[in-house]
Amino acid sequence: MELITGVKKKETLELSEILADGMIGQTVKVNGAIHTIRDMGTVAFVILRKREGLLQCVYEESSAAFDLKEIKEADTVEVSGVLEANEKAPNGIELRMKEMRLLSEATETMPLQISKWKLKTSLEAKLNYRPIALRNVRERAKFKIQEGIVRGFRDFLYKEGFTEIHTPKIGAKSAEGGSNLFKLEYFHRPAILQQSPQLYKQMMVGVFDRVFETAPVFRAEKHNTKRHLNEYTSLDFEMGYIDGFEDIMAMETGFLQYTMALLEKEYAKELKILGVTLPNTKQIPAVRFDEIKKMVSEKYDRPIKNPFDLEPEEEMLIGQYAKEEWDADFVFVTHYPSKKRPFYAMDDPDDSVYTLSFDLLYNGLEITTGGQRIHDYQKLTDKMESRGMTEEGMEQYMSCFRHGMPPHGGLGIGMERLTMKLLGEENVRETTLFPRDLSRLEP
Amino acid sequence: MELITGVKKKETLELSEILADGMIGQTVKVNGAIHTIRDMGTVAFVILRKREGLLQCVYEESSAAFDLKEIKEADTVEVSGVLEANEKAPNGIELRMKEMRLLSEATETMPLQISKWKLKTSLEAKLNYRPIALRNVRERAKFKIQEGIVRGFRDFLYKEGFTEIHTPKIGAKSAEGGSNLFKLEYFHRPAILQQSPQLYKQMMVGVFDRVFETAPVFRAEKHNTKRHLNEYTSLDFEMGYIDGFEDIMAMETGFLQYTMALLEKEYAKELKILGVTLPNTKQIPAVRFDEIKKMVSEKYDRPIKNPFDLEPEEEMLIGQYAKEEWDADFVFVTHYPSKKRPFYAMDDPDDSVYTLSFDLLYNGLEITTGGQRIHDYQKLTDKMESRGMTEEGMEQYMSCFRHGMPPHGGLGIGMERLTMKLLGEENVRETTLFPRDLSRLEP
Repeated sequence: MELITGVKKKETLELSEILADGMIGQTVKVNGAIHTIRDMGTVAFVILRKREGLLQCVYEESSAAFDLKEIKEADTVEVSGVLEANEKAPNGIELRMKEMRLLSEATETMPLQISKWKLKTSLEAKLNYRPIALRNVRERAKFKIQEGIVRGFRDFLYKEGFTEIHTPKIGAKSAEGGSNLFKLEYFHRPAILQQSPQLYKQMMVGVFDRVFETAPVFRAEKHNTKRHLNEYTSLDFEMGYIDGFEDIMAMETGFLQYTMALLEKEYAKELKILGVTLPNTKQIPAVRFDEIKKMVSEKYDRPIKNPFDLEPEEEMLIGQYAKEEWDADFVFVTHYPSKKRPFYAMDDPDDSVYTLSFDLLYNGLEITTGGQRIHDYQKLTDKMESRGMTEEGMEQYMSCFRHGMPPHGGLGIGMERLTMKLLGEENVRETTLFPRDLSRLEP
Repeated sequence: MELITGVKKKETLELSEILADGMIGQTVKVNGAIHTIRDMGTVAFVILRKREGLLQCVYEESSAAFDLKEIKEADTVEVSGVLEANEKAPNGIELRMKEMRLLSEATETMPLQISKWKLKTSLEAKLNYRPIALRNVRERAKFKIQEGIVRGFRDFLYKEGFTEIHTPKIGAKSAEGGSNLFKLEYFHRPAILQQSPQLYKQMMVGVFDRVFETAPVFRAEKHNTKRHLNEYTSLDFEMGYIDGFEDIMAMETGFLQYTMALLEKEYAKELKILGVTLPNTKQIPAVRFDEIKKMVSEKYDRPIKNPFDLEPEEEMLIGQYAKEEWDADFVFVTHYPSKKRPFYAMDDPDDSVYTLSFDLLYNGLEITTGGQRIHDYQKLTDKMESRGMTEEGMEQYMSCFRHGMPPHGGLGIGMERLTMKLLGEENVRETTLFPRDLSRLEP
């Protein structure tokens, strides 16, 4: 029997430790993957890829205790040597190599030149070699930023008194119902994959008042576009005791403000690598669905085809309008038509053609759908009846309303879409680790 | 167009604001659900349930501007009145009610007496009325603690340089393969639900060195026990550049230490409600699989039936042994037999019957499986061949090893099981928000 007492400091250093004051002249040990080797004849530069960035190591036959031929790109190594200042090296520091220990060997040459600053290859190739392509410093930075977004979502909501929940993804019935569900057999019973945690988070409002979840959702939609995925990570929250759906928009604005500040502070390196300028989230315009449709139609001389829905092109024009007229990257479009919203959406008491709901558009792409929900049992059953729905499979959901539910609302944010727009990408697959779409089920 | 500028302070107060210094004598407004009403004739106590706890409100006809009959249990309300000290009230404070505004009405009496301190009902009944049962203060506290566990996992790992990832749950093939997979049709192609993010997190070690994920996993196991679920939340991490699988155990010990400190600091209220004493995580014994089997067999006079596996009863006895001999709640059991571990597990170079892997038992229940993985391409293909496996469907996973992977390992922790043992529960369903098992697919 031996005793495990926790994490011990390692002899090998991370990049932030190397970059600390007073390290120049020190002999240190580091490990990493060989990102690239530039052999200049008398001297060679061996670039190590570490999780915090790149470290330039200098090889000279006279000072190194090993042969340069012993290492090659994509091997992983542990090296020791003296740190020296060199303003031409990344971060102004380099390591003069002495000892080297091979940790693992690559057996094949790389299919992509990941050590190039920009991976000059197609999205298709990047996805086909996903785990290799992501070793490129810019490619991986995208997912570090994505981490920051999700972290910001959670930390902000903890601060605002929300409780994190974990709801089941396999179920008997789904919130929105219909044809967009993946079906499976669950021990000889028909089951579905949840396309949203909607009913669960509403039920949990009766318990915790404010809840959130960051988890996968599944949509069997036969869309093949740059903005659709069949599985994505949804950032969901739901909150009780609201005065109106404006409270939901205010909370989302607060999340965006908090997260941009977090990114600026903790992910500055990655923002710089990707050349990202953070959007202004100080104030976000909110405008009615019917009004913005009219405004866009007039400004861009485009007839309104369907007064009850927004086409993707219309969303883009709304983004353009918001930028041109209000210098806004984000815009809340409020009061969506009731017939385009699910049964649980609260209709506007002043005009039941519309709902107390909204979408958030980010540079012309919908990244959030949210709104106030019906909390009154009778109103809920009336609306379900008017849509020909029954309580079957939703007994517990319905029972919450019979046993008192506060006025509440919430939203769902598409994590990959928010990352995509923040990074100025054109395709949501660029900011999805392993996309699932009509043709892609692997890797 | 109006402008949304972020979260505004509400007029209504939360419990922590009410309990701040200098509030006695103040007139305040609060909202909440009516947890219970105790009508004593001349005076009535109306207990409000808020997310931070209970608030006693006092109703007297002479001072209230409404009739007590206007409210009933499970309604949600907004009330105003003066705060008064009363050492018999929860938290030593109560609100003398003046105004009341009804926010929503319950239409049916409660199926469970949620206002009782302990819900004296069967697990079956609790699950059948899940969203109602969780309104009980003790029931909901369990899931607040669960939040703390997951939060501790993430915050500790961020601090240790891990990157959070989101990997797909629908796939073509799974890490462990076999019969325990839920199958579904994915646009006319056969697909499965991932039973672990294993292959993905390994691939991402080549990108970020250290990664983690907190997400659902799916296991179509036909177990019907107190400790099995068919869908659960797995806390997974994987880390590169390890010196051995001891590094993984050290990291898990660090997580437990960090999380217990977080619970003590941020979740003291819930720990008190549930009467939980936190386990000692200062040091955790690690003992070989074959040795602890022998030790337990000798001490408890129980013959070893199967030298290559642990029966649940044996796990319980190991827990008992660790408590009695080492005063330990946790124990790492190391060097599991190779034939009981998946293909990617690294065999012990000193004796390939065993692997460099471990389970963590918590009071006699396995809550973690982890270990070092094979990082050498040739060794990996050799082991796969010896098991009759092919690379089919794992091409990208295999390519990572051809292009250099550092020595690495990781683990998966069952979130619900860890919560269960921490809270001293006997059934994992007690600490699962909406359990999925052989018979339960709803709610």
